[in-house]
Amino acid sequence: MQGPSPSVREAASMYGTAVAVFLVILVAALQGSAPPESPFPYRIPLDPEGTLELSWNVSYVQETVHFQLLVRELKAGVLFGMSDRGELENADLVVLWTDGNSAYFGDAWSDQKGQIHLDAQQDYQLLRAQRTREGLSLLFKRPFGTCDPKDYLIEDGTVHLVYGILEEPFQSLEAINVSSLQTGLQRVQLLKPNISVPALPSDARTMEIRAPDVLVPGQETTYWCHITELPEGFSRHHIVMYEPIVTEGNEALVHHMEVFQCAAEFESFPHFSGPCDSKMKPERLNYCRHVLAAWALGAKAFYYPEEAGLAFGGPGSSRFLRLEVHYHNPLKIKGRRDSSGVRLYYTATLRRFDAGIMELGLVYTPVMAIPPQETAFVLTGYCTDKCTQLALPPSGIHIFASQLHTHLTGRKVVTVLARDGREKEVVNRDGHYSPHFQEIRMLKKVVSVHPGDVLITSCTYNTGDRTLATVGGFGILEEMCVNYVHYYPLTQLELCKSAVDPGFLQKYFHLVNRFNSEEVCTCPQASVPEQFASVPWNSFNRQVLKALYSFAPISMHCNKSSAVRFQGEWNLQPLPEIISKLEEPTRHCPASRGQSPAGPSTVSVGGGKG
Amino acid sequence: MQGPSPSVREAASMYGTAVAVFLVILVAALQGSAPPESPFPYRIPLDPEGTLELSWNVSYVQETVHFQLLVRELKAGVLFGMSDRGELENADLVVLWTDGNSAYFGDAWSDQKGQIHLDAQQDYQLLRAQRTREGLSLLFKRPFGTCDPKDYLIEDGTVHLVYGILEEPFQSLEAINVSSLQTGLQRVQLLKPNISVPALPSDARTMEIRAPDVLVPGQETTYWCHITELPEGFSRHHIVMYEPIVTEGNEALVHHMEVFQCAAEFESFPHFSGPCDSKMKPERLNYCRHVLAAWALGAKAFYYPEEAGLAFGGPGSSRFLRLEVHYHNPLKIKGRRDSSGVRLYYTATLRRFDAGIMELGLVYTPVMAIPPQETAFVLTGYCTDKCTQLALPPSGIHIFASQLHTHLTGRKVVTVLARDGREKEVVNRDGHYSPHFQEIRMLKKVVSVHPGDVLITSCTYNTGDRTLATVGGFGILEEMCVNYVHYYPLTQLELCKSAVDPGFLQKYFHLVNRFNSEEVCTCPQASVPEQFASVPWNSFNRQVLKALYSFAPISMHCNKSSAVRFQGEWNLQPLPEIISKLEEPTRHCPASRGQSPAGPSTVSVGGGKG
Repeated sequence: MQGPSPSVREAASMYGTAVAVFLVILVAALQGSAPPESPFPYRIPLDPEGTLELSWNVSYVQETVHFQLLVRELKAGVLFGMSDRGELENADLVVLWTDGNSAYFGDAWSDQKGQIHLDAQQDYQLLRAQRTREGLSLLFKRPFGTCDPKDYLIEDGTVHLVYGILEEPFQSLEAINVSSLQTGLQRVQLLKPNISVPALPSDARTMEIRAPDVLVPGQETTYWCHITELPEGFSRHHIVMYEPIVTEGNEALVHHMEVFQCAAEFESFPHFSGPCDSKMKPERLNYCRHVLAAWALGAKAFYYPEEAGLAFGGPGSSRFLRLEVHYHNPLKIKGRRDSSGVRLYYTATLRRFDAGIMELGLVYTPVMAIPPQETAFVLTGYCTDKCTQLALPPSGIHIFASQLHTHLTGRKVVTVLARDGREKEVVNRDGHYSPHFQEIRMLKKVVSVHPGDVLITSCTYNTGDRTLATVGGFGILEEMCVNYVHYYPLTQLELCKSAVDPGFLQKYFHLVNRFNSEEVCTCPQASVPEQFASVPWNSFNRQVLKALYSFAPISMHCNKSSAVRFQGEWNLQPLPEIISKLEEPTRHCPASRGQSPAGPSTVSVGGGKG
Repeated sequence: MQGPSPSVREAASMYGTAVAVFLVILVAALQGSAPPESPFPYRIPLDPEGTLELSWNVSYVQETVHFQLLVRELKAGVLFGMSDRGELENADLVVLWTDGNSAYFGDAWSDQKGQIHLDAQQDYQLLRAQRTREGLSLLFKRPFGTCDPKDYLIEDGTVHLVYGILEEPFQSLEAINVSSLQTGLQRVQLLKPNISVPALPSDARTMEIRAPDVLVPGQETTYWCHITELPEGFSRHHIVMYEPIVTEGNEALVHHMEVFQCAAEFESFPHFSGPCDSKMKPERLNYCRHVLAAWALGAKAFYYPEEAGLAFGGPGSSRFLRLEVHYHNPLKIKGRRDSSGVRLYYTATLRRFDAGIMELGLVYTPVMAIPPQETAFVLTGYCTDKCTQLALPPSGIHIFASQLHTHLTGRKVVTVLARDGREKEVVNRDGHYSPHFQEIRMLKKVVSVHPGDVLITSCTYNTGDRTLATVGGFGILEEMCVNYVHYYPLTQLELCKSAVDPGFLQKYFHLVNRFNSEEVCTCPQASVPEQFASVPWNSFNRQVLKALYSFAPISMHCNKSSAVRFQGEWNLQPLPEIISKLEEPTRHCPASRGQSPAGPSTVSVGGGKG
């Protein structure tokens, strides 16, 4: 076997990051910049077997993330990084590789064909490589933004982490193509908010909502449904915190969990413990939809603000709860048993405010549709000034958490608050949103909404793989655009959503009909999905649909519950007028920036093979 | 009076550009990078009085422009620079200023309120400041692109130069606001093509087309029309070159000149010498529209390629020529006399090819319209594959020059060549186009057009100051989108232009009518301009008009002369489909770029006040 190609040697020495990592190395000179002991509050397994484990912390002051990657069974190397949606192509990577003689660590990127290249600017900075009892531990850091066009910008919201296992030496970095490797992705909110944890009340008690001893099916995806109930006579309490309980060893298997409260109008619900899509599942369980708690991989405990709690128990509240556990089992492991669930912390000493959940975005209706073959089609739902004026208390409400929701084609979601026609602040934004990763997220900053404010929720969809229009609705192949915002004090307003006026949509179908001299069924008995299905999707009809959605009046759902509207005229409402938009956050990339941050230069290496 | 504020001292020393320029200074150490003697092929006056004179050259290898600015009567300083459309706000500037004690030279920029700031990155590099007999001469250079977001990017096409006169000292750069200065703008093609000048034939003769001894009217704008004629029996010749003759002293007054040949169908034309808008001007002079030569301020001689010439004289060619001189006289100077004109170089030894002029873009028809209050509305005209297939010779034609043309609201013009649905190259582009500066420009690179190619001409309009739609047409308040391309060998194809199919436009008016429940007059007797005038310009109607223009079939003018079409079906033609677009030219701005290019640091200054 040849030695490393000159270009690699050159590159490695050029960036001064060559380091024999198979040895026990201590980069003594650099430990000053390493964070203190046990400094990694967040930890997730990257691969289904858990051989790669990532821990990290976030410094908002330095705008830097410190990563600690534990490689349990190192073969010839590993790659780790980030990409727009979890693809291994066009990814921003760190690579630890060997040519058989030496080992190298470098900031790299993969092109659209999956070939790996060393990055001209080295922004991942290796701080320590250390053999531990558990495996090789790599400590490195990276700024949120690097100003290197090849690099991923670490933003709020979902980050798609990617990894790959190098099974054998490569003569050069350029010889690696990700398509030949065992690779995978893991979604995570990397930039966790930096919120101080409120103290728990002294009388806090806990309740575990678990599906005991589930035999996890040997299939990739299982949603397990389990019904449990509160004790008879359980009085009104406030949930003040909850945290996940994940069965040890199943950390890579348990993807997300939610606890729903069932509808109070039914006296009781049948017990059930089985896959949610089972034919045995009682129909009535569909009425268990009121979210009490939601957790997803990588999330820690969820705390309510000190002055608020989520009420449960007591009169007018169902005693029945549904726990839903999503098992992600791509290796189709059979026979694994799991008892994961959620631990609720609650108090009988009710806090000053009840917390509530409000739905923002689009009404679940087919009038809002996305043409097929669109890569970034935007639909927008409004919570209008008229509705907030009517329904919010004079002192406003305070949103402290948010859960974004779409179905399969959702790619981005954002809610913005506008006041007097001017966009003021982002409530929550996820530019790498995935329908497979719907966490309740604490907001970095509580957003106060006053009567007369407008909340604008926009979702971006990719229908590149669809041949017919995707209409709004409840079905998994239909779409939604929702932001469940968690707020206090509780108001009667449960739903503040919109959809285009149906009459104007009919004008659109008529117009398409006349314009294209093709027949779109506009006969009165045709349903809106049927009408959308018969639209010939040429550029004109696509653009006019966009024009319609950004012009036509809307129908508002300003509702106390899903069926009860606030009094007032809610049809044919004007679209909120926005005279000034928030500027896109721009990265300041001074032309004066140096070649690379001061980082590890040549590292002296001691000791024999470990 | 106080000394300079600390911030200026700091800034000046920080950027190391402080230099006492009221003295005779020789920056000896920097002369190595100064260009050789008399190295400035291009020269223009900046202000109407000619006290500021700019000379420059272009290095395409270094992507740098060397400027020499002559300040004839220096007061307390001068500012010079570039901006998008000639405004003094948001301009990229060099400023020579004094605080009363010292003088400074620096790269600066003006904000949108006109206040001046020193640039964080100094990209104008002072090479020499010298007192000459004529005045102070400043020699400095600048790269085309600097990667500084505050800087203007010097591109092909029109550049709006701006200047200002500092009448008194300023305590700091930040104390200067452009609104308090005498300022102005001058349009110029800064990046002249780097074309080797073809040799003139040995038998070349010259002919001067001049309006002798014109008494220039004391008003800002005069288009002077002068009829002259070729000698009786003047046989067929080829024009191979022409150059301006500008009366000495009137360099700042003569803005542009064109020579038109009159229509051959009229036996004779009345003689006339007077303002073109005079009521005394004979009607028939409107038939003198065939361009023989065109010159604008800053342009040098225009050479035909060695193998081609523009035919004039002989049978079938009118003996009558119309010279049009545009006098730009903002100071309303009275009594000035001028005899400027154009010198044609022609030969009786006909060259291998006749050159021709072809019109690309939009048909002059009201069906192509721009809504009011649009800041960047694009209209596009096509020369389709079907037309080039039919009309071009198998070996194609070669475009060597181009004159872009719109009326008052035109802001950008570009023509792109596409082959097999893919954009291949730019024929001519002006991203800072001004209707007040319509030069014939030699192309940097001859563009060959083959049968089956498509030529796409797009114009961008700003109708921010209009209240009604601006329709296509001949009127100065109507719009055009034309590229007159100069090419050889001559073909019968004179016009290759398009417009939206009128039937589809009627569908648009119907649609607008039904959709808005307002009445757009669609009765058969209403003219298209009347119909456009009654459209309520809401966002929907604007967007649908855009969708119409980018979707509806077109009507082609594939014409031998303005009235004679090539045989074939030219109505209801499909829009050319473009599957791959040319990428926007991206500037490579490495993050590793240094603070500023190696430039003049502290300069030692000797001698007393001059």
